[in-house]
Amino acid sequence: MTRHFTSLIETGAEEVAALVESARAFKRKPNTDRPLAGKSVAFCFMNPSLRTQVSCEVAAAALGAHPVTLFLGSGTWKIAVEDGVVMDGDCPEHAREAVPVLARMCDALALRSFPAGKDWKEERKDPYLEAFRRLSSVPVISLESAMGHPCQGLADQMTIRERMDPRGKEFLLTWAPHIKPLPLAVPHSAAEAAVLAGMNLTIARPEGYDLDPEIMEKLKGVCRAQGTRLRVTEKPEEAYRGAHVVYGKAWGSLAQYGAPPPADPAFRAEWRVSADKMALTDQAIFLHCLPVRRNVEVDDAVLDGPASAAVDQAENRMHTAKAVLHRLLTGKHYSPEANKCPIPSTR
Amino acid sequence: MTRHFTSLIETGAEEVAALVESARAFKRKPNTDRPLAGKSVAFCFMNPSLRTQVSCEVAAAALGAHPVTLFLGSGTWKIAVEDGVVMDGDCPEHAREAVPVLARMCDALALRSFPAGKDWKEERKDPYLEAFRRLSSVPVISLESAMGHPCQGLADQMTIRERMDPRGKEFLLTWAPHIKPLPLAVPHSAAEAAVLAGMNLTIARPEGYDLDPEIMEKLKGVCRAQGTRLRVTEKPEEAYRGAHVVYGKAWGSLAQYGAPPPADPAFRAEWRVSADKMALTDQAIFLHCLPVRRNVEVDDAVLDGPASAAVDQAENRMHTAKAVLHRLLTGKHYSPEANKCPIPSTR
Amino acid sequence: MTRHFTSLIETGAEEVAALVESARAFKRKPNTDRPLAGKSVAFCFMNPSLRTQVSCEVAAAALGAHPVTLFLGSGTWKIAVEDGVVMDGDCPEHAREAVPVLARMCDALALRSFPAGKDWKEERKDPYLEAFRRLSSVPVISLESAMGHPCQGLADQMTIRERMDPRGKEFLLTWAPHIKPLPLAVPHSAAEAAVLAGMNLTIARPEGYDLDPEIMEKLKGVCRAQGTRLRVTEKPEEAYRGAHVVYGKAWGSLAQYGAPPPADPAFRAEWRVSADKMALTDQAIFLHCLPVRRNVEVDDAVLDGPASAAVDQAENRMHTAKAVLHRLLTGKHYSPEANKCPIPSTR
Repeated sequence: MTRHFTSLIETGAEEVAALVESARAFKRKPNTDRPLAGKSVAFCFMNPSLRTQVSCEVAAAALGAHPVTLFLGSGTWKIAVEDGVVMDGDCPEHAREAVPVLARMCDALALRSFPAGKDWKEERKDPYLEAFRRLSSVPVISLESAMGHPCQGLADQMTIRERMDPRGKEFLLTWAPHIKPLPLAVPHSAAEAAVLAGMNLTIARPEGYDLDPEIMEKLKGVCRAQGTRLRVTEKPEEAYRGAHVVYGKAWGSLAQYGAPPPADPAFRAEWRVSADKMALTDQAIFLHCLPVRRNVEVDDAVLDGPASAAVDQAENRMHTAKAVLHRLLTGKHYSPEANKCPIPSTR
Repeated sequence: MTRHFTSLIETGAEEVAALVESARAFKRKPNTDRPLAGKSVAFCFMNPSLRTQVSCEVAAAALGAHPVTLFLGSGTWKIAVEDGVVMDGDCPEHAREAVPVLARMCDALALRSFPAGKDWKEERKDPYLEAFRRLSSVPVISLESAMGHPCQGLADQMTIRERMDPRGKEFLLTWAPHIKPLPLAVPHSAAEAAVLAGMNLTIARPEGYDLDPEIMEKLKGVCRAQGTRLRVTEKPEEAYRGAHVVYGKAWGSLAQYGAPPPADPAFRAEWRVSADKMALTDQAIFLHCLPVRRNVEVDDAVLDGPASAAVDQAENRMHTAKAVLHRLLTGKHYSPEANKCPIPSTR
Repeated sequence: MTRHFTSLIETGAEEVAALVESARAFKRKPNTDRPLAGKSVAFCFMNPSLRTQVSCEVAAAALGAHPVTLFLGSGTWKIAVEDGVVMDGDCPEHAREAVPVLARMCDALALRSFPAGKDWKEERKDPYLEAFRRLSSVPVISLESAMGHPCQGLADQMTIRERMDPRGKEFLLTWAPHIKPLPLAVPHSAAEAAVLAGMNLTIARPEGYDLDPEIMEKLKGVCRAQGTRLRVTEKPEEAYRGAHVVYGKAWGSLAQYGAPPPADPAFRAEWRVSADKMALTDQAIFLHCLPVRRNVEVDDAVLDGPASAAVDQAENRMHTAKAVLHRLLTGKHYSPEANKCPIPSTR
């Protein structure tokens, strides 16, 4: 495993699978021995969060660590990241101090940093996350950056594996309508997790809503190595046929970056996840990272129906957070048997 | 006991008394055995808090649980609660996801949600608290809603019982002046706690400042069952005579909902709690939920005098929070003797 | 030791030295026995913080205490401190309630409260910190007030002692340029820590940028008692010669209170800490409390060079926070040997 956990493809198929197994072990049999006692983890939020904050805090505390939740920059100060800058502007602090200092006080640093929606070419470089990776002496975890949301991807994959062997199954990532141009981090990581698990990937999206080209190249590379198929289509109905997993998600256009998607009712109806469309699948389960705009992205009938695994998927954020923290801070995967195995008494 | 703790009358006289005894046991002899180790409780604040946040966090931590403090909606997102809504407005998340997800990660959910002061008929339905009650698979605790503040009522009653046997004693709930139309949750729960404990209740308030009619009906019902007396008056001085407990509290008018109370100095002097008025009582103790506007609601002489039990009452928020958490999460009341009882050695 | 920890000079040279030794013991050999288990500490922030929040939370948690982090007044309510006030303004709560209540729930209270930059004569009285000191029944820790930042001063001194015996060494506190009139708390406490440790103190600052006169008198008194020298100069280059420690820090003018320092490039260059100036010293180490505006206060070459101890200094905030909490809450200094020393078995 790499030192940091900021990208699923960088982490690799084997490690991702091992993390999912570790998370499933936590779910079956929670640990009771506080393996991270005496440690602290800083969870740094530059953007709001519900599932991520709660799952991370609960996971860290359950393992015995102290979670420090920080809302960076939401108050009065911002962090500069460029080297050599004369800091006479609105940033009173530089990452060259902030990151090493946090790393001296905590045993791991986790960061959520959304793109601003203004200049994809710059934002896709994830300057804050990269500064954390470069300047931290302790492991760094991405809690969503411009390019990915690997913790979400782990939970997605865990939810699938609870229901099927993913190898060779059909994974549909379908674009969904929204009133805002949302980030691409979640679709990127959902797709990465799917191909790393050996699934065939179909991406259904309107023209102009492609994923980042570098991510697409990486996805193709994984599919080539796995011998699986990657397909991109702008015909949603067709795409649902035969799917075993439908992942609905809104995201913004890179072609018209920062502009909200069309509000046209017919266009929305064409792309909204509905019970009719789900009926075309091979009894697919439905996944969504949440929060979801009901009846805009997805119909009530799907979210409240038996196919939806979205709440399980959110619960799995907590179990996978434990798996990641355990791996990064103890150096090994969680295995309840190994931990609990008593040394046989010879007496 | 009901599954949730969101109303004192719903909880019932016997359980309320048992919770108060449990809290007094915690105060006499704090637990040291972390009965809630490994558990997490989400404390969700849609409104600001001092005593409630601190008492809840400290109580949970002292019992070994991890408190997750969340400030819902104070940032950029809000939670929708209506069924069937097309979510193309300012709410990116629905309670139908948010509540079950929190319930999957935490062992209890606590919620503070004030009314907006615009439409009592709607706000009195407590839509957020009701959504939590309906959608949560784990116990829900009210940290103050439009209709009640049961944790405060418990602490009120504990403070009285530390000083007297409440049965048959005179409890005066007196309206007090203020610059804002404050919520009715605290007077509702103070009155509920008093009648459930078998006290005679006098409510002194100016015309137009009645409590919610449904709460009044419930209070009357309890009084009938207990054989006690409920009196409402607009003559404050008369009301003080013979009182054993004076509970001073400002609240807004339901008749002129959302309008601030009159600022007229003579009116304020008539209703402000003063040493002169306290002298009319039967050596009553003085209670207030805090925060209190000194010399507007209550004179310095009362708050700083020997009759005031307001700081003890605030401290008791912590002990009663422990009692509620212990009861909901272990299924039984705290009893230090039971917990500590050593198994006699046979050697 | 005094009951509270709000000023280094009040704490005294011997106790400050003992706290530094305790902090060094924590750094060498972290405790593992949770000496503060079951205790809670309220960390109250009226102003933003990074190092202080993280170091305090991590220190408290590592000792087994529960840290309650509160952002007072950052939302909708403020705390009044004047006695006898009629509270019909913007403060819904008075310190006479807030402080005793917090002290009932927590085992120590810590407060950060910056001056407003409007009226030094009033702000230098530190009304909030004084209210906490006066009204709290448990120990109070200053996390920076108008007059001092004693936790920072402790970390400063610890960082020096890790590198040299401070007695008789040359400590230069040099004013540095900035775009804002920063508080004087850090230079006050840095100077106090230096003279209490027996160092000769040179303060280099432009005309009009003197420290508070009362602090200056106290510094002179300590130097007289220690037989050391205190010098004030407005010639920066001269001041660097022979220094063993250079403490760079921007602060505002008390003569033109609230006005930002001059932005003139030549003036900035004269006062900015540079490699050239550092070359004049006796191989001095460089200290800064952080955050630092790079290339405004201090050049990159100094911050990124081998002389800078600023990141160690920030790390030491955590170790010194443990020392202070341990001393105030257990009554004794941390000593790993004393804690771990096994009672010899007689068998």
